[in-house]
Amino acid sequence: MRQKKGSLFVISAPSGAGKTTLCQKLREVIPDIKFSVSYTTRKPRPGEIDGIHYTFVDEDEFRAMIADGEFVEWAQVHGNFYGTSKKRIEDMINEGFDVVLDIDVQGGRQIREHFPDSVLIFVLPPSMDELRKRLTGRMSDAEDVIKKRLKNAIDEIKEYKNYDYVIINDVFDDALEEIVAIIIAERVRTSKIDKNWVKENFIKEEE
Amino acid sequence: MRQKKGSLFVISAPSGAGKTTLCQKLREVIPDIKFSVSYTTRKPRPGEIDGIHYTFVDEDEFRAMIADGEFVEWAQVHGNFYGTSKKRIEDMINEGFDVVLDIDVQGGRQIREHFPDSVLIFVLPPSMDELRKRLTGRMSDAEDVIKKRLKNAIDEIKEYKNYDYVIINDVFDDALEEIVAIIIAERVRTSKIDKNWVKENFIKEEE
Repeated sequence: MRQKKGSLFVISAPSGAGKTTLCQKLREVIPDIKFSVSYTTRKPRPGEIDGIHYTFVDEDEFRAMIADGEFVEWAQVHGNFYGTSKKRIEDMINEGFDVVLDIDVQGGRQIREHFPDSVLIFVLPPSMDELRKRLTGRMSDAEDVIKKRLKNAIDEIKEYKNYDYVIINDVFDDALEEIVAIIIAERVRTSKIDKNWVKENFIKEEE
Repeated sequence: MRQKKGSLFVISAPSGAGKTTLCQKLREVIPDIKFSVSYTTRKPRPGEIDGIHYTFVDEDEFRAMIADGEFVEWAQVHGNFYGTSKKRIEDMINEGFDVVLDIDVQGGRQIREHFPDSVLIFVLPPSMDELRKRLTGRMSDAEDVIKKRLKNAIDEIKEYKNYDYVIINDVFDDALEEIVAIIIAERVRTSKIDKNWVKENFIKEEE
């Protein structure tokens, strides 16, 4: 009745907006959703599993993948490379899975270019005070480090207009419900219906 | 944080798809949603209340409203007039309410012309067999009357492609959840966010 193709969702947020917890809960609420696993040249941290949290590769492999155009987006952060495989996303979508990409605003822009039907969701913190509290509360960094983080957060927030949906993460359960609603709604878009099924089941009756 | 304007949702379906029950439940699940009350020249049936089920007017009044361009859509069915007031919808939307219009596909098309941002939802029965069962089960009409109803249903179904979303009313609770998801998702569209709120709360911090 529905097409076998899934949708691609991008979730972006400034640091401190609560995106990570939202995405974790999302896995529980919609278990058949897939999160894309990024490639990275960063060394695994304790508890990180290859193929689950990241696919860990060395820099030569990563550069070869860049050269082969395998990444829909990639970036270098603090000397480490991070990249999203185009083929991995396409495979999951073609298998019928909805895919979620937890990615920054630069990455979001590149995803949209390659996947124009992707659905972009931006998560905002409820207020600047709350954002400041969340960014300072969880780390003991120096004031200028915190200032830099706040500036980065504001730079990310400026990009919200390029997104399809904006979730304000004030009451967590409401924010989660809103993301779930976006995903469920996307599944019943007219473009997702199997036109042949409608034809076979209803319209041909007339002939 | 969000704009004060509501959204307009159109729900259309062939007779027998279960639209009426879905709309009734929708009122319970989202109590702050408004259903537009149509004007009609039809006489009230037992139990129908003026201003709740319809606004009952005589034909002269109705024709005057047509002449004044007050209807966003109107139709004559079995000799009676039915019409949707443009102003009523605009008032409710401007007061911040989401409005649902339970209307046929011809009406849906006219709504879209006047309200290009309206969200159009089409409800399909799960199968032709089920539709036939529902159309025959609930009335003791002659076979040619049923045939005519089925033909009308198929003609309505042909229009589903002009809708944004298609709900298949197989499992009622799933269909209801999907309509609710569409409404919740629409409330968090980026176009619904108060741009000044974002600016005041986050972006101006930088200056």
